[in-house]
Amino acid sequence: MSYRVGIDISGGDYAPLEPLKGAIWAQEEIDDKVVLIGDKKEIGQTLEKLKDKDKIKIRIEDLEIVDAPEKIEMDDLAAMSIRKKRNSSIVVGIDLLKKGKIDAFVSCGNTGAVVSASTLMLRLIEGVERPGISVFVPTAKNVSLLIDVGANVNPKPLHLLQYGIMASLYYSLVLNKREVTVGLLNIGEEETKGPDFVRTVHKLFSSAPINFIGNLEAKDIFTGKCDCIICDGFVGNIALKLSEGLVEVVGKFLTDAIKNDPLSKLGLIFIRRSIRKFKSLVDYAEYGGAPLLGVNGVVIIGHGRSNSKAVKNAIKVAIKELNRDVIGEIRGRLKEIYENNSIKELISSATQ
Amino acid sequence: MSYRVGIDISGGDYAPLEPLKGAIWAQEEIDDKVVLIGDKKEIGQTLEKLKDKDKIKIRIEDLEIVDAPEKIEMDDLAAMSIRKKRNSSIVVGIDLLKKGKIDAFVSCGNTGAVVSASTLMLRLIEGVERPGISVFVPTAKNVSLLIDVGANVNPKPLHLLQYGIMASLYYSLVLNKREVTVGLLNIGEEETKGPDFVRTVHKLFSSAPINFIGNLEAKDIFTGKCDCIICDGFVGNIALKLSEGLVEVVGKFLTDAIKNDPLSKLGLIFIRRSIRKFKSLVDYAEYGGAPLLGVNGVVIIGHGRSNSKAVKNAIKVAIKELNRDVIGEIRGRLKEIYENNSIKELISSATQ
Repeated sequence: MSYRVGIDISGGDYAPLEPLKGAIWAQEEIDDKVVLIGDKKEIGQTLEKLKDKDKIKIRIEDLEIVDAPEKIEMDDLAAMSIRKKRNSSIVVGIDLLKKGKIDAFVSCGNTGAVVSASTLMLRLIEGVERPGISVFVPTAKNVSLLIDVGANVNPKPLHLLQYGIMASLYYSLVLNKREVTVGLLNIGEEETKGPDFVRTVHKLFSSAPINFIGNLEAKDIFTGKCDCIICDGFVGNIALKLSEGLVEVVGKFLTDAIKNDPLSKLGLIFIRRSIRKFKSLVDYAEYGGAPLLGVNGVVIIGHGRSNSKAVKNAIKVAIKELNRDVIGEIRGRLKEIYENNSIKELISSATQ
Repeated sequence: MSYRVGIDISGGDYAPLEPLKGAIWAQEEIDDKVVLIGDKKEIGQTLEKLKDKDKIKIRIEDLEIVDAPEKIEMDDLAAMSIRKKRNSSIVVGIDLLKKGKIDAFVSCGNTGAVVSASTLMLRLIEGVERPGISVFVPTAKNVSLLIDVGANVNPKPLHLLQYGIMASLYYSLVLNKREVTVGLLNIGEEETKGPDFVRTVHKLFSSAPINFIGNLEAKDIFTGKCDCIICDGFVGNIALKLSEGLVEVVGKFLTDAIKNDPLSKLGLIFIRRSIRKFKSLVDYAEYGGAPLLGVNGVVIIGHGRSNSKAVKNAIKVAIKELNRDVIGEIRGRLKEIYENNSIKELISSATQ
């Protein structure tokens, strides 16, 4: 089956150039259809530039464009902007998804606006009370899925259980793994550790229908100790941003140390290939985008700083999610769980 | 003035060897007196080994040892262990500090036990409701102080204000800086960002007698954007452990990439000097230990994995704190603040 994936050309720090390049690049590699959503006039102008500079041969007639001339800026207030800018790429994109005119939507724009528009317009999957943003984290073993990294900063324990269930299914379907493990991010392995909130979640997880391995300490996030790592959106966002900042500073420290030493500078020529390999390992562009789980539709949120490669890979993540019918599976699984009586008790005991 | 610094020889993953080596090393470099607290027999045996292996010439008669034969293990429950193991190095050390027989106590042992013993036996400085563990974080500019990294995982907004006041003073006294800046760790710069708890703290900080620069995003922790970074103990502990884990994995990724590439392996010889320099920049051993702020006494908590260098530097951190009379200054400053009427209102409004 061939899908139609909408891509927000106006969203992200390097829009419209990088999203456009990424969309064209993706179109060359996939059989599905990429639909560009953004300011049509601007897309035309950018395409002309690309023709001159990057020798891209595609004609505007070959592209499917949906005009969305308004722009939600990266620092616009989410709730207000989606109400006021009805012709923005984000609102138009989510609306197309709702109406079934596209099958997935990818945006590197204002995260809050994408989350709000998705939640309000697509609504949540039955059994989900809050959406969660999940990101792929490269680990020493393979890759883990960390959820939530910022959609929900005042969560209830039950929301984290829903994240655990959704992430398990997502991981098993998209990364083809049978026994998916779930860990709860905490400051110690013992169940008595951590704030009251996290201890309640631990209790809930212990009797929940997930493969819960217990608390996961932050030092083990990157060792690949478990497949899905669950935390509240505040802690997850801090973990994500801290990691990005740290990798950047560490890289700067290291290159400065090398550049200030003549012998090392010479050595740099030899290790260049390894540094490239290393960079690709920690490069978020490799993993594309972050699936927004819990909404009624495939929505992928790209990093604000996404380059064309990240955009291309985000589109591929969307297609993988569609191919495995992740949303249908989550819907079915949640229904099954909620119909089970003991789970009902578990949930009602946790929400008291 | 000459001080007496007690060091827990039984605490830490590499005890008694590394704490003992660190204590001897420190004694060679300082005029103050290092007091060894631990199992006297074991210390004697370890010293014999050191004489053979490391050519250390010191005789046991030259060392001041206080016998504390019991051991609190790294995974013992804090509250119970300090009640049951009265002859442990931690309880004996804090007791010596309380009685004025030593002026500071350094331990790389069970953090929870050190915090509990300090809080219960030394009591808190008037005006402080919870102690906080502060760590030095190397940044692209200089060094920042992050508090709390785990002493208090269910804090009230007022506790964070007390951390902000203590950290500011600590930084200004120990690192000789006049205009110390304070940032609140959050997921965005706007005051409307973050969980309800953090937003309340933001309000409190905005009218507090500290040089508050607003929210600090996690990506900026290592850029050196502000001197003191305040957060709750859960988030701080996760940030700390995540950073350690990430630096380790990044190092492994990079060396693996280099080792698997023959050309890079050759280059490694050239860049060895730079790697050493880089390692010293991110090595926690350089910064010694983490000051436990808020208790009535100078207590430094070392990393569980401390080597002798970290122990030596932790002892030096303790002496610096004593030389600047950090505790006396904190006590005075808090008294001054609490006597100010408008601050009283601010505090009562925040605690409602």
